[in-house]
Order: sequence, then structure tokens, then C-alpha cells
Amino acid sequence: VRRLRDVGEHAWLATLPRRLPRGSLAAGIVVGAGDDAAVVRARPGRLLLTTDALIEGVHFRSGWSSPRALGRRAFAVNASDIAAMGGRPRWALLAAEVPPATPVRELDAILAGFAAAARRDGARVVGGNLAAGRHLALTAALVGEARGRVVTRAGARAGDGVWVTGALGACGLAVRRLIAGRGGRLPDPPSRVRAGERLATVASAMIDVSDGLAQDLGHLCRASGVGAVVDLARLPVAPACRRALGAAAPRFALAAGEDYELLVTVPRARERALVRLAPRLGCRLTRIGRITRAPRRVALIDGTDPRRSRARAGFDHFR
Amino acid sequence: VRRLRDVGEHAWLATLPRRLPRGSLAAGIVVGAGDDAAVVRARPGRLLLTTDALIEGVHFRSGWSSPRALGRRAFAVNASDIAAMGGRPRWALLAAEVPPATPVRELDAILAGFAAAARRDGARVVGGNLAAGRHLALTAALVGEARGRVVTRAGARAGDGVWVTGALGACGLAVRRLIAGRGGRLPDPPSRVRAGERLATVASAMIDVSDGLAQDLGHLCRASGVGAVVDLARLPVAPACRRALGAAAPRFALAAGEDYELLVTVPRARERALVRLAPRLGCRLTRIGRITRAPRRVALIDGTDPRRSRARAGFDHFR
Repeated sequence: VRRLRDVGEHAWLATLPRRLPRGSLAAGIVVGAGDDAAVVRARPGRLLLTTDALIEGVHFRSGWSSPRALGRRAFAVNASDIAAMGGRPRWALLAAEVPPATPVRELDAILAGFAAAARRDGARVVGGNLAAGRHLALTAALVGEARGRVVTRAGARAGDGVWVTGALGACGLAVRRLIAGRGGRLPDPPSRVRAGERLATVASAMIDVSDGLAQDLGHLCRASGVGAVVDLARLPVAPACRRALGAAAPRFALAAGEDYELLVTVPRARERALVRLAPRLGCRLTRIGRITRAPRRVALIDGTDPRRSRARAGFDHFR
Repeated sequence: VRRLRDVGEHAWLATLPRRLPRGSLAAGIVVGAGDDAAVVRARPGRLLLTTDALIEGVHFRSGWSSPRALGRRAFAVNASDIAAMGGRPRWALLAAEVPPATPVRELDAILAGFAAAARRDGARVVGGNLAAGRHLALTAALVGEARGRVVTRAGARAGDGVWVTGALGACGLAVRRLIAGRGGRLPDPPSRVRAGERLATVASAMIDVSDGLAQDLGHLCRASGVGAVVDLARLPVAPACRRALGAAAPRFALAAGEDYELLVTVPRARERALVRLAPRLGCRLTRIGRITRAPRRVALIDGTDPRRSRARAGFDHFR
């Protein structure tokens, strides 16, 4: 097995230009990977900038994903942030910290997965960094473009509907099984770039569900100065999660993290427009609650328990 | 001492918007730190994108820099890449991996240093990421703008002069002393943004000296399909390095890394223009050699040793 320490940083980096796009006018790339910095040509308008990391021992453990899936994931968790603003990712950077004993083809697979996920979302890898380290850590940065409205976390108003794309709980369940030594793999995060761009035309606020719906709704409420009421019975729970946990599944899915779905608030006046565009999102869309005036309070309606369990917004409550 | 684990990720992050610029039209910031992604407004033209990391145990050890200087350094190593293309940094992201036992005020100081260095170079911090980890790692990504010419590593031609800004060897000497347990601190990298922008008007190729001049000149020669001859006696050696190492200083400075000076090639026809702009670079500029036709060969003229020691370009030779 050829390992990174046998090949060396520069020899590995020297192979990059062959595998990544250099100049590509279609993708706006004037100078691609391999120089001090990439040079790109942005269309006039607003840019979206974000960075997020996957760290071994924190976000994943060895064997939880194939190297290729890990690369895809490093892109997806960043693309999710761009999608949650209503934008499209365009250019990606990947900074990798890699133990010297890592097989070269593992690093190759990580990069290939990252580049493939980028391409699927209409973006290109234009550079990065490689450093020896004690554990594997992938820190990506994305530059996106917003062609239409940009949606922050801060625009939700009392009366707006609270909606969520896709289904929740599948990743949380997989992590629970992996930690318990019951095998499996982390599911690939969904791509919600197209959905985010379309939802941005009607949304008052939007956030991606990375820390768990309860916590992320809390972030949205805090930024908007509002509260929310969520009907647990309406929560779209991933089938695997429902099968495994039965009646406990909705509460689990409410707190589970890393689903990378979009949580979006939509004013009543735009609900008809939302219903019209829903078939073109490429995923389910479910109304799970409503925004309230009560600042920072996320209330739950639990069908199995008629009393409302009031909770302060945020992760601290749910851990 | 309040530590990060006592405060929590989200509580610390919640303090960021107070300390970082939110919307600032002057800086092109529509939405600053605190949302899913930052929103900025770029001027029409080319953008420069780069990422670089400082990892504890790899790039530095605990105590080598104050937390504030470490933050400044995390920005500076990235700004150096933007400067080497002839651009100006505009927006910065900082992804930090931080052990939970880290004192909060240490993280505060890192961020303050990062933000101060950004501001000094005309850039603003618009976002980032915070993750628990086993060691401290700072991965920054920068978006810069190029108002004039963009200069890659690939344009050097036989006959061009080889020039370097500032002086070399100070950081390498500091690292040697720190490793030997003789104390001291890492010197702050210089800011060469202004120099880079001005040198770009006359340069045929440019690179920043991060891996050591010999290695980085090798990268430039490889990208340009040329060779170079360097006169060791002309190398601008940092005074501390000269005092400590005497006659051995030039060879040490040639291989020493992390000086973050600019290495630039300039055609003969533009040498007069170079001489005219030199007083406005804000730093020394020294001609140390010339580009040759011999592909990938960096030859040394050593005044203390009349034979030319021919060497393959690149780091491998010098380690």
C-alpha cells in the first residue's frame, strides 16, 4: 500500500491539476488548483461564503463512511449552508489534515468524492491545502452565488408556517447504531440546493438542520425574535427511524442532528405560491408548525401527550 | 479560568456578531457572521480564493506564539497567497478546531488577532466554524479581489530577473531555537499585500516563500518550464539569522520556510519600471538571480565556493 508519507505532500499535490479543472470559462475558472490562489470570475451580484469541517473523532469515526462518501459529505455539509440562504455553490476549497500513514488511494477517494459532490451541485473544486496531522480533518470553504432572494434566519414573523424538507432522524439513528457497534454507514446528506433556491422565493427565514431540528429552529427563532410551536405528530420521520424506534421516533428525530434538510418559514400570504412550487423541489415538504410571538420559545404539541411541553429554544435543553 | 467546555459552542458563537462586523456596505458585507453563510457584494472582476491551515504539532507548538499572534498568523499565511497573485484580501472565514479545555479568552484572543490582521490588510472576517477537537487547528479561507493584473507561477521566461522582498531566515531561526528549547516566539509574517499588488504590474511570475526560497523557486520554475540561477551572496538574510549563523546564514535562509516574502520574476524590459516602483513597496527588494532555460534546474552560485552546485528544484533536495 502506498501511503502519503511515501509519496510526499508535493508529489501528491502535483497530481491535482490533472484531476481537477484548471481554466474552465464555463465554470468561471481563470486559474484552477495548483497556484497560490485560484482565480475565478463571478457574475455581478451577491456572493455567499461559508466554511464547515468534518473532524475524525468528533464528527465521524474511522469506518463510518467510505473515503469517497466522506469526501462527498465534506462538500454536502457546506453546500447545505449555501442552500439555506437560497444560493448555489460555485467554487470549493478543501483543506485536508491527513495522518502520514494514510493510503494514497484513500486521500484520492476523498478528493474524488468531494469533487463529484461539487459537480453534482454545479460547483467546481478550485484549490485546497494538504497538511500532515494526527487525525483526519476535512475543512471545506464554499463560495456560492445568489441569483434571486437571499434568505437569512432573521425574517420569521408570528403566523408564518414552519416547514421542513425531506425526512428527519436517519443520520441520528445511523450514528446511534455505529456508536453501539452495530455496524452500518452514515447516510449521504441530501442535496437541497435546488429546493433552497426555489423556497427562497417565498420564505421569510431559512436554516439547514445540522444540529437537530429543535436546536436549529431555536437558532432561527432567536435570530428572528419570535417563538414557534411544533406539532410532533406532523414531523416527517425517516422510515428507518420510524421502524426502529416506533412511538419514540418523532422525539428522537426532533433532536437528531446532521440531517441537512431545510427548515423554512413561509408567511400565510405566500402559502399558495409555496404549494405551487412544492412539486418542483425534488423532495417532500411538510408543514410542522407555526411561528408565534413568544420570543425564543419553541413549544411542542405532542399527540401522545396532550399537555404542551414548553421549552427554551436551543440545544442545551435537548441534550 | 472559564474554559470553552464550560461555555459551550453556541454560547461562544452567539457573542460573535458583537465582535465582528455585520452588515457593512463599505466592506461589501450584506450579511456578516452568524447566519448559515455570509453574503457579500463583490465588485465586477476576478476573485481570488485560497485556504491554508495552522495545525498544532505540525506548524507550531503550544507557547510558540501568543494566541493573538497565532490568530494574526492564521490570516497572514492566507493573505500571503492572495498577495502572491497580485490581489487584495477582502473577506475571511476562520474554521477553528479547539480542545474543550481551552480558556475562552485564548479563543477570544485568537479571533481578535485574526480580525485585526484582516483589517490591517483591508479585509473583514465574515464567518467561520467552531468544533471541539484534540488539538488546536486554524483553517482560514480568504476571498480576494484582483483589480489589476493577476500573476501566476507560470509566466517566468529565460532572462527574467529573480527578486525577493524583505529578508529571509528569521522564522526558520526562531523555529530552530524553539525546538532546541531556547525560548523565543515565532516572528509575525510580514504583510506584502501592497507590495504584491504593485509588483504584479511588472512581474512575469510570482509566488510567496512559505516552504523555503529554494523549494518555492522550484515550484515557480516547474510551473513556468524554466530553471534559475541564484547567487547566494545576494540573498537578503535577516539580521538575526546573519548574527546567529554567520557564513552559514545564506544557505540556512535559502532553505528556511515560513518567511512569507514574495519571490518574483521580472523581464529585463520591465526592470526600469520595477526600479521606479520599488520605493513604494514598503519593503526591501533584492535581485538574487536570473531565470535560465534549463528546465526545472535551480543552480546556486556560492561566493564561498566557486563551483556551481546544481540541484534539482524542490524541497526534496534540501531536506
